Parts: sequence; C-alpha cells; structure tokens
Amino acid sequence: MTMQTKNTDILTLPIKRVTGEDETDAMDMLSVEEPLEIRISLSRGRKAAPDSQARSIAITMRTPGQDQELAIGFLYTEGIINSFNQIVEIKEIGCNVLEVVLSGDIELDPASLDRHSFIASSCGVCGKKSIEAVKARRTYSPASPFPAADPVIIHALPDKLKMSQKAFGTTGGIHATGLFDLSGNLIMSREDVGRHNAMDKLIGAAARDNILPLDQHILLVSGRASFELVQKAAHAGATILGAVGAPSSLAVELAQNSGMTLLGFVRGERYNVYTSAI
Amino acid sequence: MTMQTKNTDILTLPIKRVTGEDETDAMDMLSVEEPLEIRISLSRGRKAAPDSQARSIAITMRTPGQDQELAIGFLYTEGIINSFNQIVEIKEIGCNVLEVVLSGDIELDPASLDRHSFIASSCGVCGKKSIEAVKARRTYSPASPFPAADPVIIHALPDKLKMSQKAFGTTGGIHATGLFDLSGNLIMSREDVGRHNAMDKLIGAAARDNILPLDQHILLVSGRASFELVQKAAHAGATILGAVGAPSSLAVELAQNSGMTLLGFVRGERYNVYTSAI
Repeated sequence: MTMQTKNTDILTLPIKRVTGEDETDAMDMLSVEEPLEIRISLSRGRKAAPDSQARSIAITMRTPGQDQELAIGFLYTEGIINSFNQIVEIKEIGCNVLEVVLSGDIELDPASLDRHSFIASSCGVCGKKSIEAVKARRTYSPASPFPAADPVIIHALPDKLKMSQKAFGTTGGIHATGLFDLSGNLIMSREDVGRHNAMDKLIGAAARDNILPLDQHILLVSGRASFELVQKAAHAGATILGAVGAPSSLAVELAQNSGMTLLGFVRGERYNVYTSAI
Repeated sequence: MTMQTKNTDILTLPIKRVTGEDETDAMDMLSVEEPLEIRISLSRGRKAAPDSQARSIAITMRTPGQDQELAIGFLYTEGIINSFNQIVEIKEIGCNVLEVVLSGDIELDPASLDRHSFIASSCGVCGKKSIEAVKARRTYSPASPFPAADPVIIHALPDKLKMSQKAFGTTGGIHATGLFDLSGNLIMSREDVGRHNAMDKLIGAAARDNILPLDQHILLVSGRASFELVQKAAHAGATILGAVGAPSSLAVELAQNSGMTLLGFVRGERYNVYTSAI
C-alpha cells in the first residue's frame, strides 16, 4: 500500500484585524477542517470485496493530510484491528472518503464498530466501566508500570514539539501530538484541528512503521489530556504521556489503571505528575 | 419537568509538582469527566412509552452537572427536536443515563439519529455538502446578516466569561461558552471538559428558557471555533460568535453561509473579524 500526504492543510483569507477601536485589513491563515469518512470492507482472499459491501464506521472532522495514517490509527486505537498487517489496502473513494480493506480472516466485533465503542460497550456507562472496557481490549500490558520521567528531559519537550509544528505558527489553531524517545529526541509529530485525530495519525504512523508498543517512548499532546487521548495512548502501549494542558478526572483514573505515567501542565520548566509509582 | 444540578464537577487528588528538578507533594483539582448516555423514546399520549422502546442516540464524555440542559441542547442542535415543547419528560435511568421522552407526534428523521448527523447526512462528505446539510435543517434564518460587533463591548467579554467560570480557576482544564446581550451583559455561561457540551448546555438552557433565536446576543467560546461549534450556534439562530482561539476553515465557511459574524482570537483588546457584511 502507498501513503500519501496532501498539502491542503492551510487556507489564506482576507480578514479585518481589530486592535482597540482600530480596524485594519489583513490576511490570515486558517487550519483547514474537512470531514473524512472511514469505511471498512473485508478482503476475500486475494480479491477485495466489492465496494457495495463497505461499511461506514466513522466520520471525523480533520485537517487533510496523513489521511491514511489517521484511518490506520483510528482502526487501531478503537480496537477494530490489532495489527497493521490486517490492512490489505486503503482506497481513496472520491472526496474525503477512505475505504480500508481488511484481511478476510479478521473477526469484527460488531460492538467495536460504533463510534466511541470503548465507552458504548460498557453497559451502564459509568466511568469505571469505561476503564474496564479499555483494559479488556488492551493489546499491550505495561512492561514497566509507571516509569519515572526525567525532569530535565521533560522540560525540553514542549519547545521541541512546537518547533516541529508547521501549521501552529501560522494559524494558531491546531493540535499536535509528538513522539519522543526516552532521551527526549523527537521521533515524529502529527497535527490536526482535532486532538484525537493528531493522536490517531501518530499512532497510525507508528503502527505502519512497526514501532508499537510505545513503551520506550514519551508522548506529548499540545492540549488537555482527556479520557479519549489516554485511551488511545494506552491502546498503543504508551507508558509516559505528557500534556501541555490539564488532565480530566477520568483520564487520570485510566492512566492509573493502565500503569501509565501521566504528566499535566508541562510548560515553562514545570509539570504535575498525576500518576506515578513513587 | 425538573432541572437538576449535580455538584460533582471537581475532584481533588494528591499529585507531585515538579519545578526545575525539585519535586514537592501537592493537592490538585481536576475537572470531572464522565460518560453520559442520551436515550430518546416517544410518548404515547399521556402515557410514556415503556423503557424498552428507548433508543440510545449518543454517548458523550462530559462534566457532570446540567445534564438535562445538555440533553436538551444536544437534541436541539442536532436537529432531532426543533422546540423545547416537544420534550414531555426527562428521566434519570441509573448512572449517567438520561432518557428524554418526546411528544408522540414528533416525526423522527432516522438520519438525524446518528451522531454528527449534519455531516453524515451529506453524501460524499465534502465540506460544502456539510454546510448545505446545516442550512437545509436550520430552524432560523438570520434576521440581520453579519451584524456589526462593537469593539469596546467585545474586548470586555473574555474577562467576564472567565470570571463566571467557577471551575477554570481551580482546574485550568475546562471549556466555557458564554451568552451576552448586545450591550455585553452576561446572561449565562456553561462549562464542560468538552467544548461542544458547554455549547449544548447553554443552548439547552436557552431553549428551555424560551430565549431562542440568539439573534440579539453575542456568544463567546473559550477555545477554538470548529465547524461543530458554529453549526450548533447557527442552529440556535446566533448571529455573533466570538472565540478566544482560532477558527477552522470550515467554521469560517459555515459562518459566511449562515450570515453569522465570526470573531477569532478575542483577547487583550484585539480580535480578528472573519466574516462580516462590511
């Protein structure tokens, strides 16, 4: 299969800039947001199933570019596939639609095909049941629960992530997820108007490049740490997750249950450790 | 029907605070995130339909509190109801589940019952078709397209919104939506870990209080302006929407198509006007 990158992620348009009571004409650059529909179908041996059997499983508002990584990451972090090798082919079907052809021998759990399946599958939808659902489907168990984070290395990460972002400096309106090794070297970063999409793009690329689980790595997200982001990171076997913003209660609870070191407010030589062995 | 507010939106827990290479024990407050399942059923005359006929239409990760407003706003902004009067009763079904009983004479559009229905209903999922889908279902047409914003009034809004937020100061991790009159007086604000939920809670309260359309008002959101937020605001008949952060390309396009004045980066006596009559 081939990976493609579209270069349509920034749009320039005329605006009025207001400062105090003064108004001036200016040009501004916007992060592009467009819907992407992800469909799946099952391959029949060497012959792919006809398009008519493809099933739409998600429509997400995303920044175009790395769409195939996004689809791979989404299928992976939602538990629909557990290996990149289960993908036979990814087809572009017209405008903003991808069809992912999966190996014919994959067992699809119908419950996993709903959006937010980790939550939906937890009858009663209490937070604790959402966490149990994540644990039950987890591919990796943490090799080293709550690995310690080195402050000197952590402090340097936000600047490294920001420098890797091509769109943020121009639009100010895009989320990023960065993958670092334990020495703080940036391995890759991905951007998107949706923070869950930035994480899915990165995990999709990691699955494709066969570097999962992310247990010898540090993940950093540019915004807040929600349940959904921790769930996706845990599913990729991540053991250290940092967020520039605040975590939510359920994000901390899931990190605790996943043996994941969760850092929040990572900025300006400071951060908070929310889950840790020590 | 009765409205309830739960006071479980902040959680306190012990953390380690790292500054430079120093680590100290501290207490931190987190915004609570829990799933909420929204179900709908149809009333049969004065006798509500049995629970077994209730249909689950959404599970959203939200901050507990104003759950009924959230359910009302979600049903309204997703086009499932077009008036608060179509709601007969809202029942709490155990933990984190609300069942909204709708008038038996309401016509449910099956396509509108999928999450992100405005997007899903647009075959081909190009951005332009998403916009057409929003327009086709819109309840209100703008009375005065692109009303002008008064800079002196706009500059004062972010501080007013922040002062109304009880959770942000303590957790730093929550979104807010504020509703102001055209003189800049705060009418109400709502908070949530999900920015779409903060908007839905506010529009749900506005629908209940019978103050729709919001065409003599200014809406301000604490984060970025996405397509989804502009769609919800447009559905409530809003004509001025400000965002503390950046808008996306499709958010601007939808605002343009809706006759809505869209302001971005509203902070520090500055803002950008993205759509305007002048």
